[in-house]
Amino acid sequence: MHLKLPLVLRASCAAAVTALAVPAVSQAPASQAPAARQSVADDLVVANHILANEGVLDGYGHVSVRSPSNPARYLLARAGAPALVTAADITEYDLDSRPITNAAAAGYIERFIHGEIYKARPDVMAVVHCHCLDVIPFAATSVPLRPIYHMGYFIGEGVPVFDIRRTAGITNMLVGTPELGRALAQTLGGASAALMRGHGAVAVAPSVRLVVAKAYYLNVNARLQLQAMAIGGSRVTYLSADEARSATQTYERSWDFWRSRLPGR
Amino acid sequence: MHLKLPLVLRASCAAAVTALAVPAVSQAPASQAPAARQSVADDLVVANHILANEGVLDGYGHVSVRSPSNPARYLLARAGAPALVTAADITEYDLDSRPITNAAAAGYIERFIHGEIYKARPDVMAVVHCHCLDVIPFAATSVPLRPIYHMGYFIGEGVPVFDIRRTAGITNMLVGTPELGRALAQTLGGASAALMRGHGAVAVAPSVRLVVAKAYYLNVNARLQLQAMAIGGSRVTYLSADEARSATQTYERSWDFWRSRLPGR
Amino acid sequence: MHLKLPLVLRASCAAAVTALAVPAVSQAPASQAPAARQSVADDLVVANHILANEGVLDGYGHVSVRSPSNPARYLLARAGAPALVTAADITEYDLDSRPITNAAAAGYIERFIHGEIYKARPDVMAVVHCHCLDVIPFAATSVPLRPIYHMGYFIGEGVPVFDIRRTAGITNMLVGTPELGRALAQTLGGASAALMRGHGAVAVAPSVRLVVAKAYYLNVNARLQLQAMAIGGSRVTYLSADEARSATQTYERSWDFWRSRLPGR
Amino acid sequence: MHLKLPLVLRASCAAAVTALAVPAVSQAPASQAPAARQSVADDLVVANHILANEGVLDGYGHVSVRSPSNPARYLLARAGAPALVTAADITEYDLDSRPITNAAAAGYIERFIHGEIYKARPDVMAVVHCHCLDVIPFAATSVPLRPIYHMGYFIGEGVPVFDIRRTAGITNMLVGTPELGRALAQTLGGASAALMRGHGAVAVAPSVRLVVAKAYYLNVNARLQLQAMAIGGSRVTYLSADEARSATQTYERSWDFWRSRLPGR
Repeated sequence: MHLKLPLVLRASCAAAVTALAVPAVSQAPASQAPAARQSVADDLVVANHILANEGVLDGYGHVSVRSPSNPARYLLARAGAPALVTAADITEYDLDSRPITNAAAAGYIERFIHGEIYKARPDVMAVVHCHCLDVIPFAATSVPLRPIYHMGYFIGEGVPVFDIRRTAGITNMLVGTPELGRALAQTLGGASAALMRGHGAVAVAPSVRLVVAKAYYLNVNARLQLQAMAIGGSRVTYLSADEARSATQTYERSWDFWRSRLPGR
Repeated sequence: MHLKLPLVLRASCAAAVTALAVPAVSQAPASQAPAARQSVADDLVVANHILANEGVLDGYGHVSVRSPSNPARYLLARAGAPALVTAADITEYDLDSRPITNAAAAGYIERFIHGEIYKARPDVMAVVHCHCLDVIPFAATSVPLRPIYHMGYFIGEGVPVFDIRRTAGITNMLVGTPELGRALAQTLGGASAALMRGHGAVAVAPSVRLVVAKAYYLNVNARLQLQAMAIGGSRVTYLSADEARSATQTYERSWDFWRSRLPGR
Repeated sequence: MHLKLPLVLRASCAAAVTALAVPAVSQAPASQAPAARQSVADDLVVANHILANEGVLDGYGHVSVRSPSNPARYLLARAGAPALVTAADITEYDLDSRPITNAAAAGYIERFIHGEIYKARPDVMAVVHCHCLDVIPFAATSVPLRPIYHMGYFIGEGVPVFDIRRTAGITNMLVGTPELGRALAQTLGGASAALMRGHGAVAVAPSVRLVVAKAYYLNVNARLQLQAMAIGGSRVTYLSADEARSATQTYERSWDFWRSRLPGR
Repeated sequence: MHLKLPLVLRASCAAAVTALAVPAVSQAPASQAPAARQSVADDLVVANHILANEGVLDGYGHVSVRSPSNPARYLLARAGAPALVTAADITEYDLDSRPITNAAAAGYIERFIHGEIYKARPDVMAVVHCHCLDVIPFAATSVPLRPIYHMGYFIGEGVPVFDIRRTAGITNMLVGTPELGRALAQTLGGASAALMRGHGAVAVAPSVRLVVAKAYYLNVNARLQLQAMAIGGSRVTYLSADEARSATQTYERSWDFWRSRLPGR
């Protein structure tokens, strides 16, 4: 299932680039850059822990953030379980997913998911790849995800399904090359999330805090949609396209809540 | 789905006002009022923590209580995640949802839910607004919630569904104005709870401890009803209207149980 | 749904009385009785905590044990949330459910469930009444519980459903009188468990450790049966009657496991 | 349901023996053997704790590992709840499941599952027997488990169902004799897992860390398959046989993640 996204959405994404990503680079004084990078890297460590603690990631999956000082770089932990990521694991990659720091450490095989999405989507500042359980059943069927409550508003953009078989035939299911990363980015288009058949999902957002919330609510919405289908069959009322567009969430309170639930805090 | 509630129920609500709310104001000696307010505010902090810990609220949703010393005031935390609410966050509002204390702090956008219900329902002393997950699938279908066990007895009154679209067309789904609050209160009528399509639910009760239990069991009953429908299709036996009316619960033991489960206790 | 239990089962229950309950009274030296009572009361406190911690009980429900020194007495906490029960709460009742100790404390309204089952079933040494969630959907339908794995072997005896309406018409759903207790005991017959429509279930066993396990696995079996029905429709293979009879469990390892999971241990 | 496994799979298992198990015995210097045994026994204790903590085992079920120094021996805890296993409980058995150490301690009644599988499958270095809940509904139907995501890749080999009735008629459902162990091993054939009707499952792997992950993901895949069937009916796309064969997982990050979640760490 590949949903066509309307042109206006893609246009608004392009507009967002101008507003968000590019000025951040060109206008930030040099002295602020290290502090900004540190702050973003700190958030990235916490994001790893939250996603594991809330069950969006298990031993697998990863979350990255575009460098605040250089839009041609992104930060991602070296290969390891998200719950155990520390600041020392955060590695800087270029958009071809070659390590700039920590070059000796093993990287995630599927880091191309991140690099290729950052190339294709200048508006995107953070990416999650998850095996979030409740979306996987949807990735295996032709039933599209639909927004069942306002916390999943972005699902109204459409959540396309990436079937790796259409790009590469029989594979080990992993997005382990730049070519596969590009194909996934192409399927994602201008949307906030895409499902990956037999694998999981990817979510993108303008910040690491937002992408954590989008991945979380993508999964919750899938569970609720399954329940609504069980109760109401085909007579389920989802948010209309207009409602979904109007119900944009900042998820501003989720981060503090989830952080307070981390073990050891 | 808007269920008509029988006149006798509304009448009994009006009677409850005389018995509960009004005397509390007119008869309490002035010196007792601060102690009563403190006790209610303490319960409100605990109610926030319980609702988050038991999964009725996540980073969003809120719970309020009518002031014990002035029925034209209610107490509600300033905007923030319920799990993190402290005594300092408790703010007093008038029934138009204007802050009387903590006026500089940001309030919940949807505080009008509380103010307008307190205006319309003098018997109500506490209100919860939640995105409680198991009710959302019911809010998206035309299948009414029914009481499947005595702990959900109040569902026998009928649980109307508020569809914001009927009042205001395309919105961001939030009850962010007095007018929308009034429309929700009107849909609620004399019931204990109403679902909100694409959003969540609201529950009301004569005390903060009771409203916590009603929100909790509203959600549990929804889950059990879904399961019963999966097993028994349309041949499920719910509590009859008479049974539901007879099975009134004080939930007296729930509060202590849930409080004992809070982290750090 | 009232399942007839075969005569041979009732006969074996009567035989068990001779072997278990009666000799315990007539042969125990007087000096051992206090130690035995203490040991049983200690287990009863732990049983309360386990049932709450494993989600079989919430703020409601109760577990009792017949006195090891006097089969005409049983031990049950005074009214309170099971998770919070302490040794001081354990009260001795006669089989008419009148308190012998702690007489000033409030008792559970539904203690007649215990007293009347002990009267009717001399083989029974322990009783649980729960609102265990996964059985409630079955209590609301005409679909009988069936044993789907050996841990739920006792379900093969049949799990009758008590509908309080047949005994007493419209009620508050509570077994709050000796008469209702007797009617429930009659529905239970010689079985290990009975469901209570719109309410929960009761489980019985020859010891407090066993009754905890039976209540737990009654609930688990219900969840698994619902899942099997969803997958396989009417083509589900349950344990045959002969298999269920042969698969008797002592659940010897469950108690230590569940006790090790209690908070604070 | 007994799935035939292709000859080529059995052949590759035999090949694995040459590569893995046999050389480990003949080539390891004597001085390294105790250290290797200790390391494997330590992992076995942790495996018990992880499987209980992640809900794959409850008070029942067991996990074993073939001795690294003698392929005719295996290590298994003496009878007890997995969450409570300590190094002192680890017992060495010969392949007829007679204790070599700890001979006075009671062994698991079903230890023949382990001994007979180690006999039949020289490639297997570790075995789990579980009552993992989400697979039991599948064991009761004729619906085969299928791989719904790459983490359950090994399900593509086919997961046969062992029905003890076909071997032994009416039983207590337990694999409590060498003959029943052999019958189960025969049903398992060259696969990674087999379901046991009315009972649970067995999973096998070339290491104790891998077998923990296989048992875990066997259970997760069952849950996701049930959800996909609920959404998509018979129109669910599973991993193809070729994809499943290509998607081999080392689960290298799962162990550290699960170990970090153990209580007390």
